[in-house]
Amino acid sequence: MLQFADIEAAAARLKGVAHRTPVITSHTLDALIGAKVFLKAENLQRMGAFKFRGGYNAVNSLTGAERARGVVAFSSGNHAQAVALAAKLHGCAATIVMPADAPASKLDATRGYGATVITYDRYTEDRAEVARGVVEKSGAALISPFNYEPVMAGQGTTALELIQDVPEPLDALIVCTGGGGFVSGCAVAATHLTPGIKVYASEPERGNDIELSLAAGRIISIDVPRTICDGQQTQACGDLTFEVMRRLLAGVLTVPDPVVVQVMRFAFERLKLVLEPSGANALAALLHHRDRFKGQRVGVTLSGGNISTERFTALMTGAERAD
Amino acid sequence: MLQFADIEAAAARLKGVAHRTPVITSHTLDALIGAKVFLKAENLQRMGAFKFRGGYNAVNSLTGAERARGVVAFSSGNHAQAVALAAKLHGCAATIVMPADAPASKLDATRGYGATVITYDRYTEDRAEVARGVVEKSGAALISPFNYEPVMAGQGTTALELIQDVPEPLDALIVCTGGGGFVSGCAVAATHLTPGIKVYASEPERGNDIELSLAAGRIISIDVPRTICDGQQTQACGDLTFEVMRRLLAGVLTVPDPVVVQVMRFAFERLKLVLEPSGANALAALLHHRDRFKGQRVGVTLSGGNISTERFTALMTGAERAD
Repeated sequence: MLQFADIEAAAARLKGVAHRTPVITSHTLDALIGAKVFLKAENLQRMGAFKFRGGYNAVNSLTGAERARGVVAFSSGNHAQAVALAAKLHGCAATIVMPADAPASKLDATRGYGATVITYDRYTEDRAEVARGVVEKSGAALISPFNYEPVMAGQGTTALELIQDVPEPLDALIVCTGGGGFVSGCAVAATHLTPGIKVYASEPERGNDIELSLAAGRIISIDVPRTICDGQQTQACGDLTFEVMRRLLAGVLTVPDPVVVQVMRFAFERLKLVLEPSGANALAALLHHRDRFKGQRVGVTLSGGNISTERFTALMTGAERAD
Repeated sequence: MLQFADIEAAAARLKGVAHRTPVITSHTLDALIGAKVFLKAENLQRMGAFKFRGGYNAVNSLTGAERARGVVAFSSGNHAQAVALAAKLHGCAATIVMPADAPASKLDATRGYGATVITYDRYTEDRAEVARGVVEKSGAALISPFNYEPVMAGQGTTALELIQDVPEPLDALIVCTGGGGFVSGCAVAATHLTPGIKVYASEPERGNDIELSLAAGRIISIDVPRTICDGQQTQACGDLTFEVMRRLLAGVLTVPDPVVVQVMRFAFERLKLVLEPSGANALAALLHHRDRFKGQRVGVTLSGGNISTERFTALMTGAERAD
């Protein structure tokens, strides 16, 4: 299983490369929730999401000979940009397999980092298979988006920094979850540094595969969830992330999409921060389940801010429906 | 004239009350400008703007007996909220004189802090006179928005923190300007801490009273400027701010409104930060005059983020024109 030492090693690799993102507090938010809330603003991370941490750590962990054959990744968006940017910083080639209906801003940004993009239909094709095809042809290294320890370790540095920067121990930590790489890494870091802390995964109500899997005691695969949280449309977690989550999580918090929109508006108007839907998911989970956290000190990840002004406007005006 | 010791005293009063806002850097921004840029994110300050610093320092500097008679302020928006919040934190009454056409979000927020709001017509009435009427009736203390040393000193703590948090000396600092309180305080702090630094005021092209005043060597008053930068619609600076600016500024940078909109979009999409038009003014000045700053280390204030999603959308779609 992933160890705290892996996260410390990742932190050393990321030092001076990733931003040490600020911890944001808000009196207005604390009053709304009835708790003391510490927001780790990973929307201010390089390329706009925590995914840079895992992508960079993974590419950096390869040997020079491996990197010379290039890297491949499949991703709904932010992991794609992360691996593309990490490859660029290491001077190696990247091929990214992305859903054809991913936000244009994410497709453009990935190409902008110099990567070759191959698209697939997320409702009919298996992205992992498309990526494996590239690996077989080129010998490139596959950087899995979550079920891969160098990625999990990189993501875990988020919780490491948050806990180092908050003056007193946290009672709870809420981390948004797709395939479980982010929450796994954060859970290993948080439970090591703060014994007794309760770590929760958050996910969309209609994409609750982690909740189902933990309840069943085995990995459950669901249909591609229809949710505005496009960073959390994974169908199942992996064996490595499942094992960490099974051992270390205190629970799973699910969130209806309209609460995510409400939190995106709150973040804009009161926190002055731009959050993409999945980036608002963990704070939306705290708002939706706030009765459980009264009077506590709660860490929350704001995981990403990659959304165009056009899509943001559509969500705020209801032109893109969340229901 | 305002002294560095006044700013140090203000910093001591604000410690643990104001947020120490983060300094944000962006590789994308540096590449766009051709310089190393350090953004002081005062949009993440309490009540969403640097104005909290000056408002709090001024209210805190009053005697208990003075505060018991309440405070009065006139403001186009953020100073109003700052004084209202500062009064609330000191447990004293606040009356705020605001333009009737100020953004609804700012009127609401000011009332939300428990202040009494009196509105006036900014094109026909003199707000200072309306405020003086309140002072005469109640004996309340007038907290002037810029031409008042406790306010100038509070605003100057922004530059103090920025310079403390940036590893190497800055070559230049750009601060947005309405009546000159912010740039005056920042210029006193910056030139004391970094001798040789060039401090610039930025203002809207159509609201360039500071540029005209410094060129003329005396305070010039202009008509209320028609600009989207509603925080910078002052008609003239004051004698105290003029004196500091005359002595310490390296120059004034003016900005056309469309560049402000462009920077608001850039801040949203690339920096993941919400900026109101005046909050984007200094960064827009850097973008517009970037040839002057090539290869330099430049500090820039992001002064505020108080804008509703509705007005932001109107500016992004062109429904509210900037030309």
